[in-house]
Amino acid sequence: MTPPQALPRKSFGSDNHARAHPAVLSALGSASRGDVTAYGDDPWTERVAAQLRQEFGASGVFFVFNGTAANVLGVSLMLRPYEAVICAESAHLNVDECGAAERIIGCKLLTVPTDDGKLTPELVAARLAGRGDEHRAQPRAVAITQATEVGTCYTVAELRRLGDFCHDSDLLVFLDGARLANAAAFLGCSLSDLAGSVDVLSFGGTKNGAVGAEALVVMNPALTASVPFQRKQQMQLASKMRYLAAQFGALLEDQLWLQNARHANAMAQRLAAGVSGIPGVGLRYPVESNGVFATLDPALIEPLASEWNFYVWDASENVVRWMAAFDTSEEDVDAFVAAIRAAALKLIS
Amino acid sequence: MTPPQALPRKSFGSDNHARAHPAVLSALGSASRGDVTAYGDDPWTERVAAQLRQEFGASGVFFVFNGTAANVLGVSLMLRPYEAVICAESAHLNVDECGAAERIIGCKLLTVPTDDGKLTPELVAARLAGRGDEHRAQPRAVAITQATEVGTCYTVAELRRLGDFCHDSDLLVFLDGARLANAAAFLGCSLSDLAGSVDVLSFGGTKNGAVGAEALVVMNPALTASVPFQRKQQMQLASKMRYLAAQFGALLEDQLWLQNARHANAMAQRLAAGVSGIPGVGLRYPVESNGVFATLDPALIEPLASEWNFYVWDASENVVRWMAAFDTSEEDVDAFVAAIRAAALKLIS
Amino acid sequence: MTPPQALPRKSFGSDNHARAHPAVLSALGSASRGDVTAYGDDPWTERVAAQLRQEFGASGVFFVFNGTAANVLGVSLMLRPYEAVICAESAHLNVDECGAAERIIGCKLLTVPTDDGKLTPELVAARLAGRGDEHRAQPRAVAITQATEVGTCYTVAELRRLGDFCHDSDLLVFLDGARLANAAAFLGCSLSDLAGSVDVLSFGGTKNGAVGAEALVVMNPALTASVPFQRKQQMQLASKMRYLAAQFGALLEDQLWLQNARHANAMAQRLAAGVSGIPGVGLRYPVESNGVFATLDPALIEPLASEWNFYVWDASENVVRWMAAFDTSEEDVDAFVAAIRAAALKLIS
Amino acid sequence: MTPPQALPRKSFGSDNHARAHPAVLSALGSASRGDVTAYGDDPWTERVAAQLRQEFGASGVFFVFNGTAANVLGVSLMLRPYEAVICAESAHLNVDECGAAERIIGCKLLTVPTDDGKLTPELVAARLAGRGDEHRAQPRAVAITQATEVGTCYTVAELRRLGDFCHDSDLLVFLDGARLANAAAFLGCSLSDLAGSVDVLSFGGTKNGAVGAEALVVMNPALTASVPFQRKQQMQLASKMRYLAAQFGALLEDQLWLQNARHANAMAQRLAAGVSGIPGVGLRYPVESNGVFATLDPALIEPLASEWNFYVWDASENVVRWMAAFDTSEEDVDAFVAAIRAAALKLIS
Repeated sequence: MTPPQALPRKSFGSDNHARAHPAVLSALGSASRGDVTAYGDDPWTERVAAQLRQEFGASGVFFVFNGTAANVLGVSLMLRPYEAVICAESAHLNVDECGAAERIIGCKLLTVPTDDGKLTPELVAARLAGRGDEHRAQPRAVAITQATEVGTCYTVAELRRLGDFCHDSDLLVFLDGARLANAAAFLGCSLSDLAGSVDVLSFGGTKNGAVGAEALVVMNPALTASVPFQRKQQMQLASKMRYLAAQFGALLEDQLWLQNARHANAMAQRLAAGVSGIPGVGLRYPVESNGVFATLDPALIEPLASEWNFYVWDASENVVRWMAAFDTSEEDVDAFVAAIRAAALKLIS
Repeated sequence: MTPPQALPRKSFGSDNHARAHPAVLSALGSASRGDVTAYGDDPWTERVAAQLRQEFGASGVFFVFNGTAANVLGVSLMLRPYEAVICAESAHLNVDECGAAERIIGCKLLTVPTDDGKLTPELVAARLAGRGDEHRAQPRAVAITQATEVGTCYTVAELRRLGDFCHDSDLLVFLDGARLANAAAFLGCSLSDLAGSVDVLSFGGTKNGAVGAEALVVMNPALTASVPFQRKQQMQLASKMRYLAAQFGALLEDQLWLQNARHANAMAQRLAAGVSGIPGVGLRYPVESNGVFATLDPALIEPLASEWNFYVWDASENVVRWMAAFDTSEEDVDAFVAAIRAAALKLIS
Repeated sequence: MTPPQALPRKSFGSDNHARAHPAVLSALGSASRGDVTAYGDDPWTERVAAQLRQEFGASGVFFVFNGTAANVLGVSLMLRPYEAVICAESAHLNVDECGAAERIIGCKLLTVPTDDGKLTPELVAARLAGRGDEHRAQPRAVAITQATEVGTCYTVAELRRLGDFCHDSDLLVFLDGARLANAAAFLGCSLSDLAGSVDVLSFGGTKNGAVGAEALVVMNPALTASVPFQRKQQMQLASKMRYLAAQFGALLEDQLWLQNARHANAMAQRLAAGVSGIPGVGLRYPVESNGVFATLDPALIEPLASEWNFYVWDASENVVRWMAAFDTSEEDVDAFVAAIRAAALKLIS
Repeated sequence: MTPPQALPRKSFGSDNHARAHPAVLSALGSASRGDVTAYGDDPWTERVAAQLRQEFGASGVFFVFNGTAANVLGVSLMLRPYEAVICAESAHLNVDECGAAERIIGCKLLTVPTDDGKLTPELVAARLAGRGDEHRAQPRAVAITQATEVGTCYTVAELRRLGDFCHDSDLLVFLDGARLANAAAFLGCSLSDLAGSVDVLSFGGTKNGAVGAEALVVMNPALTASVPFQRKQQMQLASKMRYLAAQFGALLEDQLWLQNARHANAMAQRLAAGVSGIPGVGLRYPVESNGVFATLDPALIEPLASEWNFYVWDASENVVRWMAAFDTSEEDVDAFVAAIRAAALKLIS
């Protein structure tokens, strides 16, 4: 059977348009030996979860299938139904999960407009009115994203300040780390540095070269015991768990996760540098991970989109999102830059 | 890094203790070429879903991560929260999903005791009292399992009779097909024969050689439109969907799914035949798929369990479950039979 | 405007077919003076809740609108969504609330068949298998009904034994007291005697002469804090709360609740005694509260039902339910007995 | 027993600080005759529901206990869990119901900032992005409030324009009518005029002189059939329903609902006129129902609040809310105005 055709050129649409890293695929093959008991009671899961617990300094590590699940499961550990989670208006949890939090947890999201996708103690504090008032859903958790949905990163100091504020305010902290690797690469810090101020976080594999796997990392020991039940009930318990664990095993080996993230980040930097000075192209947000959010002359969007895959992030402001992946090459970036430049010049002339 | 150790001998504990079939792993590699758009808008998903739609005569086919999700998503298409699903007391949906249906759908399960795991029109009819009474959850769907949790199969005629009864009674039918392949192999019928009387069913890949993938097959066109949203909200939308599709692609090629199921069934038959006549060993249910449910002299259980992996299905009746997989060999079965025989003879002597 | 017509003769269909007690109506009038702040922050609520807290020895007392709400709110205080409540198959919570527990709490009900509607430590113990197994909803609470749905009562010793077993087994106990007053009257014990072994219970007003009011009585102090939020979120927070409190104020004055219950119980006893010896009529359950569950010659049911209001409780066994209320008179009972006797004699002759 | 003390002076805190209207209490007494069957199958409910159906031109009318329930039940008729309701950020449904919609319906609220609490087609249209995108909760209903939470009213033409837009856009319309009577009184239109453009609405009794009763009015016949089940499951089915019906019976007689609303509106107008020109006092919103939203010199708030009951609506903008009720007298208003004037003058001097 002839295999179907992939896209004709490298996509800048999303880091999950990329294939899996060969080392991840190879790890699936290695894990495919003999029988093991199911549902995570196997030596692959045991070993890789232990590695991750050590890497993060975590109380528990649990594999799930995708990022929505990691977010919902993670937040569900923290809330009774009448409690609410504070998050940025732009949070994936709020915008891109088809209301999963509301349905599965039954909770209210108290959203905060932000420019750069980052919450601050001040923004959180503004959502705490109504505590103790039975008519209001009670804020009990704060969810942040690192790197954020617009590619920015909290510094470790910012994380610490926010975490301290939250814990002093009787709020638990969840961190959506679908692109945590990119943040660690940008900040030059360890995973445990990023996890130190939060109670639960996710560590994304899928956008970083996995086939499809995310790790839920529980830092707060009081939240660990219910995870197995919540994970099963939330339909995230893999029977052949070794294949999720093995993906992370590959990403941990020789810090492949970090290599992948550094490379993707570098390609985003190369792209940002490449378009610098092109007329009609500006940067909307600082490039602090593997995405470039650019403002485009609206007349540029269609010609570019007819050839290249990327998303219009905000049509009203003509902001587009260009994502780099672990396998984006310098040639891919340069070709894309050349296309942008050509389109821009054509527009002027 | 030395890979971890698998179990020392073939497990009869579950068909999901088995590794993935090499052709499935190979398909993951083949799919791992170039970029494609995410979330199922890719040529692998398009092709394999089309193949499955044709195979089943279905309105829509949607990949999800595991069997619990296929069950919950499938039933959720049919119910408003005040509506109920009738199922066997022994149904996986009722017993083994940590209350996922109640939490995610918010519905009541109206359970029916059965001996062989199979519902009949008469058993369903007995649960229809209270229709129209606002104090009662309203029966609106019936969920059956094929092959059942105890390894029995509905004949195509039984399915048709039950389906006709349900549809005449304004009940939709969901079929949990985690082991549908084994049923098709046993009955010698097509997948569309099995699907003809139901509204929605699952087609399990994981227990049949996949790494981890299930297909939700929607036969009733009225139920198709909401699936994408329900799937996303239920945290089952894979970003790199091609890797789910590719697994089914491999299982469809040369009817590998059928070969695998036939082999596993044959090994169960070989096991059942092998233990026939061994003192202290009896069959609890007819062997109609890849599982053998045996009654054991209780003194046999511990010695066997110390060497071999299997589950005690019903401790009060000394029923054990022995499952065969696509990769269970004749030698595996024969060695297991020999061990059972030896233990039984030791007991007598 | 001419008022509509009530039923032509006293209903034995339900204790909620009765009107409200005049003292309750009068209390509504008394409470209807001047302004008070809403949502329970008023002196009527404060006073009556304090009286009830003292009567029960309770940590907190909260008024709600109806019995379904008291049950669901009460159980919801005890469970995370992956936890389950064990109850009798015949429990109102299971049978008569249109799946409210499943929808609102999202939990599984682990039901137990019983003959007399009463759970025992042994019956509860039989439902504890699967603890610690992530595939199973985790038993965390036990819900009982006093008086039960079939009119029987737990003795105080039975309550204590069950409560001790549950607490020793890390299970919380909820008691549905829609007819708690009838149980107290039958047993000759105090409300605090009935509440001593449970964590949360309801105290029903509606079936005992109220217009419509139930009290949720929280004995376990650890469960009190979340009630205001859960009550509001579960749509049970009355703005003009004084009118709920005033109803209980009337029922507490001179122990009207107990007088009402004693009278209703006595009428049930009179009815049971009256039908004793009538051919074709037997008692299905001991008469321990205000209901008589009788087995009838099936040929008796229709003639009686054409004139008198009562329910066929179990059509397959020809069991009917006859309920007495606070305002059922001796004449009502005697006329009903005469009608039953006449129908039975007619049948024989 | 000495009755507890009400507030020393008329509250301007809320229209539900008021007692019930004597005619309502009297109707409870009239309904308290003889036995009737429960759960709404009684002649009071039948008669009053029929009157309301006629008044509104409705398909079905169903009584519930409170306004939160009317809102949640009403919206729940319109949505599958992956569907969303668009509402004003200031909607009671969003702000004041402790997350009931999220928990009970499991849906997302797509909120829109508004100044005057009123949605427009343009504001609704701005929330329709993402339709058909499985990552987004799908807008399916629009919830508005009439009179709004800030006392403004949609004109009948505005309602029609919004309703037409919604229906043309495949959106159902829910109207929270906790103060619908006040809107009808202000606009001088009929209830059916207000209901003509919506699918489901509530008609509030509690704030208009009832003890506690709201009517859910279903205009769209396709949404009627599931109400009895949804109402029961949402814990809103009163057993002694006649007492809810009777309250509305009293409010309908001689259009008491309209008299009450007119009077309360007139008192709000008198109050607004009275404070006009007092230094440090301004009107924040037009007075179009029974509430006055005033901006106060912050130094005025505390002295006034120490003597009079009212709410600070928006502390950051020094907005206070003064509500009039059916039983607010001209003397009450004049005394309050005098107190405001005195406080203001004291401030100046």
